[in-house]
Amino acid sequence: MRLAIIGCGGVGRALLRLLQKKQAALAAEGLAVCINYVVDYYGGIYQPGGIDLEAFTGFCAQEPDITKFPGGSAAVTVDTIVQNADVDLAVIMTPTNKQTGQPGLGYMRALLSAGIHVVTSDKGPVLLAYEELRQLARERGLQLGIGCTTGGALPAVNGGVMDMAGARILSIEGVLNGTTNFILKEMEDGGVSYEEALQKAQKLGIAETDPTLDVEGWDTATKLLILTNVHMGLKKTLADVEVSGITKLTNEDIRQAAKEKKKYKLIGRTAVTEQGVSMSVGLEAVCSSHLLYGVEGRNKAVMYTSDTLGELVLMGGASGVTPAAASVLRDIVNIHRGYDFVR
Amino acid sequence: MRLAIIGCGGVGRALLRLLQKKQAALAAEGLAVCINYVVDYYGGIYQPGGIDLEAFTGFCAQEPDITKFPGGSAAVTVDTIVQNADVDLAVIMTPTNKQTGQPGLGYMRALLSAGIHVVTSDKGPVLLAYEELRQLARERGLQLGIGCTTGGALPAVNGGVMDMAGARILSIEGVLNGTTNFILKEMEDGGVSYEEALQKAQKLGIAETDPTLDVEGWDTATKLLILTNVHMGLKKTLADVEVSGITKLTNEDIRQAAKEKKKYKLIGRTAVTEQGVSMSVGLEAVCSSHLLYGVEGRNKAVMYTSDTLGELVLMGGASGVTPAAASVLRDIVNIHRGYDFVR
Repeated sequence: MRLAIIGCGGVGRALLRLLQKKQAALAAEGLAVCINYVVDYYGGIYQPGGIDLEAFTGFCAQEPDITKFPGGSAAVTVDTIVQNADVDLAVIMTPTNKQTGQPGLGYMRALLSAGIHVVTSDKGPVLLAYEELRQLARERGLQLGIGCTTGGALPAVNGGVMDMAGARILSIEGVLNGTTNFILKEMEDGGVSYEEALQKAQKLGIAETDPTLDVEGWDTATKLLILTNVHMGLKKTLADVEVSGITKLTNEDIRQAAKEKKKYKLIGRTAVTEQGVSMSVGLEAVCSSHLLYGVEGRNKAVMYTSDTLGELVLMGGASGVTPAAASVLRDIVNIHRGYDFVR
Repeated sequence: MRLAIIGCGGVGRALLRLLQKKQAALAAEGLAVCINYVVDYYGGIYQPGGIDLEAFTGFCAQEPDITKFPGGSAAVTVDTIVQNADVDLAVIMTPTNKQTGQPGLGYMRALLSAGIHVVTSDKGPVLLAYEELRQLARERGLQLGIGCTTGGALPAVNGGVMDMAGARILSIEGVLNGTTNFILKEMEDGGVSYEEALQKAQKLGIAETDPTLDVEGWDTATKLLILTNVHMGLKKTLADVEVSGITKLTNEDIRQAAKEKKKYKLIGRTAVTEQGVSMSVGLEAVCSSHLLYGVEGRNKAVMYTSDTLGELVLMGGASGVTPAAASVLRDIVNIHRGYDFVR
């Protein structure tokens, strides 16, 4: 399988290290990977015979400008890949823009149109144009892997597609954001205020300097929306989700809930009702019999209910660049094993 | 896809009802199913143009002897299917024999050799000869779906194969038996003795009249063994599993554990150590931070730890003939979607 890597930040480099480390294991199931391109901000590298991964990962540890590597040039871009069309699959790990989806969206359209499978970690294009991209892939007999866009290592997309195959998903419920779940646990266990818990999360590098997207519920809403559109075949937008966050929760609220043996979770929920599909994100005090009660700290989970397979909870999902890269690799391997994600 | 149904008991009939009910949904993804054979104890039905499912499910509600249905004959057997080789996939739902694997094992060998995909709910052959059957399928470019043998609706097999694709599974831990988990919950909540809880489970049809296989841990051991062999590529046998059950647990034990905020679970565990792979089944008092702590009542769960994707818990898995049939259907659909389970 000839690959192009587009976007060579933390996850991209972790993926290259993984592909190197797992070369033998992948070859054992018939998957011999050859990296023909690495493209990022500065330009790219093109080596039709395959880039030496060991040399390249060593190089990357020293030098941010990849065009200085053999085969590198500012003239090697995504356009080069599209024109040459000499790879089987492109991994798109561009920075996410949830308003325009660019540059990832344009890349995906061009690469799929050129007959190249796409696997991506970029939420923007999937959020804005999943159905269009799926159709494009389908018409050309190509695959589109998006597992990394929702939960990283947590197989939330796989769970709804592969583990629920043949069943109809009736509702989706999830603790989809590790940062807010960590803050809630700190407030609960330590009795500290929201502000103090947030500061601790920021110190540990769990929360970002501007935590708005996480704490106001937008990251959860984004993931819920992707899962809803993918699993229910819909074309909803963020405007269809009722969103609230965790910033107003007090320790008194937590104490009151604890009296009833309940815990607060930031839950994203899609339900099919007689009035249609409703989507919401907000704090809920859940009791111990609720299957998401035990999702603690940085863990994430998603629960599907279905017509014939009952309830399924998927919980876990390690955080960081290596698990995210492993999630991209999972899609690549499942495509190699022949799975049709875009049927 | 032309199917043969072998074994027409509760799960078999539920599958036929499901295939009928889901005809339109399956057709929408290009899966038009045609049942050419139904074979069971009395003989079978052969209709090369496809059996009318609506008529047949109606007939089944009235009459146990399927050979009285049009196309039925005592002479239609699995041999007929093997000789004609005019189906794409056979679903084998024979009663399980864990000592010999028969009759399912012989059927699977013959059908795979005849170039027919196999999906099965029969634990026996998978327990005794998974690797042989996998190789047989692989050599002939066929698939072997075994999801229903371990947890029914719970996608324990899928979870380790599809959701962990590209990662190496380092340990398997599970609450794999709903009956014992129900009994433990009854003892915990109701303060009743083991015997009383067992009687309640028997009254509700959750425990069998002879509950030995469940309460002594053998059902858990069987499932653990299948998952271990499938996910780790091993050929272990039941003799390699250290097995104990729940029959000696007292209410005093439960009270002591509760003081430490722990709960007893019957846990099957496979761990890779420096000494090799160890497998065991036994009661463990787990604390609330353990990801299997929240698996209550008849629920089941399995947890995988891996090298690159961290921990994954799959929890849920409705019980009964319809969810079991839906699990068989899941394998059929995933095979239709092109997945290579036997790589």
